[in-house]
Amino acid sequence: MIGELINGMFKDVGRAIIDKEADVIQHLAEDQVRAGASVLDVNTGPYSKNPKDDMKWLIESIQKVVDVSLALDSTKPDVIEEGLKLVKKRAIINSTNADEAKMEAIFGLAKKYNAQVIALAMDKSGVPNNSQKRLELAATIVAKAIDFGIGPEDLFLDPIVLPVNVAQAQGREVLESIREFRLLSDPAPNTTIGLSNVSQGTKHRSLVNRTFLVMAVANGLTSAILDPLDKDLVDAMIAAELILNKNIYCDSFLDAYRKR
Amino acid sequence: MIGELINGMFKDVGRAIIDKEADVIQHLAEDQVRAGASVLDVNTGPYSKNPKDDMKWLIESIQKVVDVSLALDSTKPDVIEEGLKLVKKRAIINSTNADEAKMEAIFGLAKKYNAQVIALAMDKSGVPNNSQKRLELAATIVAKAIDFGIGPEDLFLDPIVLPVNVAQAQGREVLESIREFRLLSDPAPNTTIGLSNVSQGTKHRSLVNRTFLVMAVANGLTSAILDPLDKDLVDAMIAAELILNKNIYCDSFLDAYRKR
Repeated sequence: MIGELINGMFKDVGRAIIDKEADVIQHLAEDQVRAGASVLDVNTGPYSKNPKDDMKWLIESIQKVVDVSLALDSTKPDVIEEGLKLVKKRAIINSTNADEAKMEAIFGLAKKYNAQVIALAMDKSGVPNNSQKRLELAATIVAKAIDFGIGPEDLFLDPIVLPVNVAQAQGREVLESIREFRLLSDPAPNTTIGLSNVSQGTKHRSLVNRTFLVMAVANGLTSAILDPLDKDLVDAMIAAELILNKNIYCDSFLDAYRKR
Repeated sequence: MIGELINGMFKDVGRAIIDKEADVIQHLAEDQVRAGASVLDVNTGPYSKNPKDDMKWLIESIQKVVDVSLALDSTKPDVIEEGLKLVKKRAIINSTNADEAKMEAIFGLAKKYNAQVIALAMDKSGVPNNSQKRLELAATIVAKAIDFGIGPEDLFLDPIVLPVNVAQAQGREVLESIREFRLLSDPAPNTTIGLSNVSQGTKHRSLVNRTFLVMAVANGLTSAILDPLDKDLVDAMIAAELILNKNIYCDSFLDAYRKR
């Protein structure tokens, strides 16, 4: 569970970043970790005027209250590097894609700072419209990472989830990609998805999110960027992992998972 | 959606069968069809003293109020045949397994009365403990059906769901079987599961049921015997089919599905 809530695109968070209200950020960090997130995504958002300073402030604020890994979420390598200098635990860079120049920059940083990497199965020509093309891009990414001495176990391959209301045929392709990515190498690369995107603009967002997550877990998904405060979503994820025998059944399996 | 509620093992239904209270049965039939069931399972239950007469009475009662296919659920071929003589729509026999004598009896009835067949991937030695053995039994069943002139499209292969609290490792095997059964022939055989069994004896039954159903749909499941009155379960199933692009997205996709 990579918690998605510390992102400047959310109004409250964007305002807290501008006004430097650390307690808003810290509550979100604590709430997400309490709900089971083992990684927190950190994104200064589209309105940040000084993303390097804001990233620094966010990380310092978060690390005062929780002790988890951070996923440094930015399109700008210098913002990510600012974060990499500060993190106390091993970080995840969010993200590279399959573009040569992007991979050079991001894998270079990952190697220098011993970070893991989320890698999107897309390139300059955009998001593929089938699983075959996604697999080709994922293979390119895995090969390039190995060139940099970064093993598949430190990659999180993301097939890119699209909103079901505008790209309905892509759901099946993404699910297939999750299954296929795991077969790319031994050890298998990790996989992840930006879950909430599947329900963007739809009604019944929570239902669509948790249904997609369970289908993805059934296909072998190993992590997801999601809202850990959506209790129904986390319940569904826990039940899916139980069914796959990843945790031993007990009557209080929901509580037991959360207390780990 | 094969509605599971008309089964004498449920106390109210068992009593209604003994007391010949047709309205109890008819309400269950109407409620399940209204909730979206396209087939109703009919089982006289373990306490019926005259299962042939009771099957006849159940079918006559049900067919007075709804116009759907019935799944005639009995271990006794003569009880099934009594039902086959009465059904107005094409029936499903529930069930055969992979035993030679059982297949001879059930496929013979299916051919004579033009019925479809639910077939369990088990034999005299019991329920297999891995997907490989399930696949072997399923292949035996498909071959035998073809000998009787029954095509795979008229079979519902059931990998046999076991309770997660006593056979936790079997969940993954069953999900794999669902995927593999579909590849046994062209046209593909249908698949089905007795869903509620997965949560037998567990807490959070509805959560476990709907999570398993969504995972099974992700693996290609084409039907399930379930409780159509569990609204959260049916919502999850509708959302899963939406994600697989089986129905076109609209904001009111839940209502739209139910109004079909």
